[in-house]
Order: sequence, then C-alpha cells, then structure tokens
Amino acid sequence: MPSSSNKNQAIGGAGLRGQSAGTTSLCTVGQTGTGLTYRGYDISDLADNAEFEEVAHLLLRGHLPNQNELDQYKTQLIGLRGLPAELKQALELIPASAHPMDVMRTGCSVLGNLEQEHDFTQQLNSTERMLAIFPAIICYWYRFSHDGVRIDTEDHSEACLGGYFLKMLTGQSPTELHKNVMHCSLILYAEHEFNASTFAARVCASTLSDLHSCITGAIGTLRGPLHGGANEAAMDMIQDWQTPDEAEANILNMLENKDKIMGFGHAIYRESDPRNALIKRWSKELSESVGDSHLYAVSERVESVMKREKGLFCNADFFHASAYHFMNIPTKLFTPIFVMSRLTGWAAHVFEQRENNRIIRPSADYDGPEHQDWLPIEQRQ
Amino acid sequence: MPSSSNKNQAIGGAGLRGQSAGTTSLCTVGQTGTGLTYRGYDISDLADNAEFEEVAHLLLRGHLPNQNELDQYKTQLIGLRGLPAELKQALELIPASAHPMDVMRTGCSVLGNLEQEHDFTQQLNSTERMLAIFPAIICYWYRFSHDGVRIDTEDHSEACLGGYFLKMLTGQSPTELHKNVMHCSLILYAEHEFNASTFAARVCASTLSDLHSCITGAIGTLRGPLHGGANEAAMDMIQDWQTPDEAEANILNMLENKDKIMGFGHAIYRESDPRNALIKRWSKELSESVGDSHLYAVSERVESVMKREKGLFCNADFFHASAYHFMNIPTKLFTPIFVMSRLTGWAAHVFEQRENNRIIRPSADYDGPEHQDWLPIEQRQ
Repeated sequence: MPSSSNKNQAIGGAGLRGQSAGTTSLCTVGQTGTGLTYRGYDISDLADNAEFEEVAHLLLRGHLPNQNELDQYKTQLIGLRGLPAELKQALELIPASAHPMDVMRTGCSVLGNLEQEHDFTQQLNSTERMLAIFPAIICYWYRFSHDGVRIDTEDHSEACLGGYFLKMLTGQSPTELHKNVMHCSLILYAEHEFNASTFAARVCASTLSDLHSCITGAIGTLRGPLHGGANEAAMDMIQDWQTPDEAEANILNMLENKDKIMGFGHAIYRESDPRNALIKRWSKELSESVGDSHLYAVSERVESVMKREKGLFCNADFFHASAYHFMNIPTKLFTPIFVMSRLTGWAAHVFEQRENNRIIRPSADYDGPEHQDWLPIEQRQ
Repeated sequence: MPSSSNKNQAIGGAGLRGQSAGTTSLCTVGQTGTGLTYRGYDISDLADNAEFEEVAHLLLRGHLPNQNELDQYKTQLIGLRGLPAELKQALELIPASAHPMDVMRTGCSVLGNLEQEHDFTQQLNSTERMLAIFPAIICYWYRFSHDGVRIDTEDHSEACLGGYFLKMLTGQSPTELHKNVMHCSLILYAEHEFNASTFAARVCASTLSDLHSCITGAIGTLRGPLHGGANEAAMDMIQDWQTPDEAEANILNMLENKDKIMGFGHAIYRESDPRNALIKRWSKELSESVGDSHLYAVSERVESVMKREKGLFCNADFFHASAYHFMNIPTKLFTPIFVMSRLTGWAAHVFEQRENNRIIRPSADYDGPEHQDWLPIEQRQ
C-alpha cells in the first residue's frame, strides 16, 4: 500500500516555501528597511552609492573596501581577464544557435578542468578568477559565433566589470551613463538569499564538491524561465508593442487568457520588490538618452495595468529588460549578465555552506505503486 | 539586531534531514522489504534478475519491458552511441590531469549546446541519448588523454551499457562475469529518492530549466566525497593494506584519530544498506576469479571491525571499490560509472518535477550583522 504520507499535504508545502533550509549571514529578503540587505547594508544605499566591485568585495571578503583596497581589488581583477587557450577553443566549438546560458554553464565547467580548485583554501582565488573572466567567456563566444571575430579579452581600458563587458561586447568604450547603469544592475542582481540557483549551489557544496561544480549547477538553475530567464521573457513580451494603448490591450488579453506575464510578483516579497525603483530610474534616464519614442512608456503602462488589474508589482527583472535594451544589449545576453553578478552571491553561500556543513538530503513523500512481485521477462505482457 | 531565528535550531534541522521536500512515485528508501524499491520493485529482485536496461526502462518509461520492448530498447540505445565531432574536439582539450567527474560534467554541458532540449516533449529522447553516450564521453577522454588513442565509440559489439563501457575502456570484449557485475552495479546505483544530486536536479528543474542543466548540476553534486566520491575514497583507503591484520590496525588507528572512514553508514538507512550484500557477493566472486590474495579479505575485515567498533555497516560504496578494482577499472573512473547509472534516476525525477512543478525556493535563518549605515568610501578605515 502507498505510504501514509498525504500527497495534498506535500503539495501544500511544495517548493519548500517558507521552510528554513539553513542559516546565512549574507542577506535578508523582506525583513527590514526597503526589504533587501547584503551583510546588513540596505540595497538602496548600495545601488545608489557603490561600484559593483565594492559589493563584490563586501560579499566575498566580508566588508566594504576602503579606497586603497578597492583600487587593489580592481587591479587584481583586471589582471585575471585572460582566457586559457583551451577555453577559447572550446567556446569556438559552440554554434551561434546555442543558448547563451548553456555557453556560460559550459565555459564555467571547462574552466574547472583547466584550473581545478584542488582544496578549499583556493576558493576565493577561484571565485575571483571567474568574476574576472565571465564577461570574457560570453563575449568571446558571442563575437566569434555571430561575427567571426576573435576578441582580445586582455583589455585593460575599462577598470570595472560592467564597462569591461560592454567593451568586449561592442568593441567600443561605453559611456559613463552605461557604466553607471551596469554598476546598479550588477549590484541589484548580486545576492538574494536562498533563491533556487543559490540553493542549488549550496546543495552541491554540501557534498563537499568543488567550486566550479557549484557554480556550474547554479548557472544551469538560473537559466530557467521561472528564475533568471524572466528579464528576457519580459523583453520578448514588450518589444513588439508600439504604444502604451497597444500594450494595455495586449496585457488585458493575456490576463483574460491566463497567460503567464513575466517580470511581476515574487516568491518572497509581498508588496514590492525594492530593486524595481532602482533600476526603473535608470531605464527612464536611458530612454531619454536614446530618444526612445515608446518602450519606456509601454513598460510604465504595463506596470500600471498589472497593478490595477492584479495588484501585482514589478520585480527586479521587468525594467531591466528595457534598460538593457536601451544599451543595445541583445536580449539573449540578459541572463548571462545576471550570472556575472550573482556569481558573487553564489560563491559567498558556498563558502558559508562549507564553513558549517551537513549534506543537504531531504526526504520525500511516496505516492508510487505498492510492492510489486518480480515477474520474469518471458511472463510480461 | 539579528533576526529572531535561533542558529542552533537551524543547525538541529540542518541538511533538511527528515523534512519532506516533495513527492515521488519512483523510490522508497528504508520503508519496506529490504529497504529499497524502484517503482515498487524490491532492489534484490531487480539486482538478482534484471539487466540494467530493464531497470532504465522501468525508471524512465514506467514499467519493466517485455522481451520485445527490451530488444528494441537496446537496439535504440546502441544506435545512439556516436559522439558529435565538436564534443570529441572539446574532450580532446581536457588534460589527463583533470578530475574525471569534471570531464563528465563538461561533456554533458557541451552536449546541451549541440543537441539542445528545446521543449519538454524531447525529455525522454534527450535522456536516452545521454544514457547511450555517457560511457563514450568518459572513455573517449580517458583513452585520448592517457593513451593518445581516438577510440571509435560507434561500437555495436556489446549490447548492454556496462559491457559497452568496459569495451570502450579496455578495447577488449568483457567476460560474462564482468558484464553481469556491471548489470548489478548499475542497477544498485540507478536511483535513491531525494539524495543530494537528485535533489539538485529537481531544484534546477523547478525553474523550468532544460534537462542538460539539471543533469550537469547533478553530476557536479555527485562529485563530492560525501556523495558519489565515496567508492573512490574507500578504494584509496584499502588499496595499500596487504593483510587483514594490517587493515584492522590501520582502521583502529584511524578511528582513534577520528578520521572519516568512507563507505560506511548512511543518512537514511539505520541498520544496513540493502545494496551491500548484493555487490559484496560479486566482489567475492571476482576476487576468486582473479586469484586475489588479500583485497577481499581486507575488505571483509574492515567491515567486521567497523561493525564491532562503531556499529556501522557498509553502504553501497564499500564493496563496489574492490569489485571495480578486480575488473581493472581505474579508481578515478568509479564515480563516472555511478553517473552512467544514476542518470536514469535523475532524469525520472526531473520528469516528475516538471509534471507537478513549483519552484524550490526555501527560506533561511539570518545570523548576520544588524542594519549597517552607509559609509562613503573616503570615510572607511
């Protein structure tokens, strides 16, 4: 007979929602201030004032750097931008039709073969190496597969990660505005407690596996449309609408058809996502800078219709879509940018898991067949 | 002030031990019969009577095949053994010094770029493709990097996966005994409910990511020494001991030093691991077949000392170590064999997660710093 577990009970608590799966000192979501803190700092303070490298230092090294530390940190990261020859060759084997998140996942996995984390004392070095070259991995593949160009990733002209990414992608020096938007964006995406990809990294870490395995698994998890893929899905949705009225008509139609509308609501936040106002402001400024005739207005209308009709708020992903678009970033590279940033949170969680580890091995409710007698193959129907 | 959560409380329930994280119809662990069932069939019945391909069919397609179905299934899998050219080239870039589990993880990830699962209707085909070529991936890399040989993986001389693996590894046709051991071994490792790697696959699947991301993440998770790496660790431990008395002295010494002894005890089983007796019998037969003078006797002594001193039983991994060793399989390929088998369980869990999905997103207890006021960089110490 089936186990005594109740299937409905399991579904009620599905997805471990609201259940604690461990302890962290990195982040709070939905508790104090505007609702998101990294090591006690409010996300608004960080996004308004810091460079991304300061936040990476905070998450990975435990404190905000002073100017001297920050300068050294940036110099160190700049020195780590060279791609190993075998990694370049591997990236050249991946066709232009591949999913860019599969490229990121593979690039990270290949790196783990070439620069293995042999023991955990290397964890910070291994992380900072990834931090420095993740933009190079995606841009090297993108430019080679799409344009036939082998870019030189050992470019020191841009000191910060976001600017470096834009330079590698376009070959041109980014504007101050674009660099500032990238700082904000990378800060907003850096860390978010036990989200699915971070939790996947911790499950992997809990078997005492290596860092590259943890990050590779996290990238694959972030890839899903219910997680990191949401900013791309939002862009795909809004890009064809030419006026706010057209957008409103389409949204109402989608709601009537019960279509899933990406970029709204959140598993934890109940009233708003504190990251929305921060990226939305940049989207507006970018809209003005490019002389956008409609995309920002369309986005605002979608926001107000979703609020009016469903009481749902924009999460971090929705205005990221238009912001990235105004910077001419191809839609399919949106989630890889998320990877470049969230790497810091993933790795900090891996360090934490290793510090006080027990293998993450939950149980399951069984609803399968009762005992089956063995039937020799010649007697089977 | 820190959150009201109690750190000790979180540690008490650490690793989600005993907490249900979902529902499955695939497996019970520690409930009925000898304690392990796949879709209601007792592991002893399966290991004593079935070929691995019957079990793969049971897990992936829902029922034990009749003779006609089994024949067709094996023919189908045989037809899927060719490695894409780009995958071979990628494997050739990985040095002999790489960790074989990093190679498996990378091979799977590269495959996902070349043969993407575009939608979930492809999930069974994508799984069976992986099932057919995972032995080819590891053996192609191993033979190329270690021996400079490019093997032809489209070899049809061995109908079953285990025999095919041994043929690819050695270039020689395996004996009936070795093929039978491989059937048993692959059956024992195929599925085990919500173990860490399977749970990682389900977390990834819960974002609606693709199958290759789920399996890549699972491989990275299995890599850890607390999980799939245990059979290799057991072999590393016993291989230098020449007599049972030497083994006993060393084990007693290790226990006194509180060293971790791999291959014993289990997160779920309390009294015994039903897989142990099944693989131990084959280890004994292999020992006799090769005229082993001491390794089996050493293993038995370690088993009895651990029982006597600590009340701990062998888990599935311990006698796998000597069994694989007697078949001349290099120790560092033990965990990749686990991958070839557990792929079936991982994929079946991914299918199940997709069937009734909610994103797996637990909460965390916060024990980090209280609110931190923003300090401009020039004011930091």
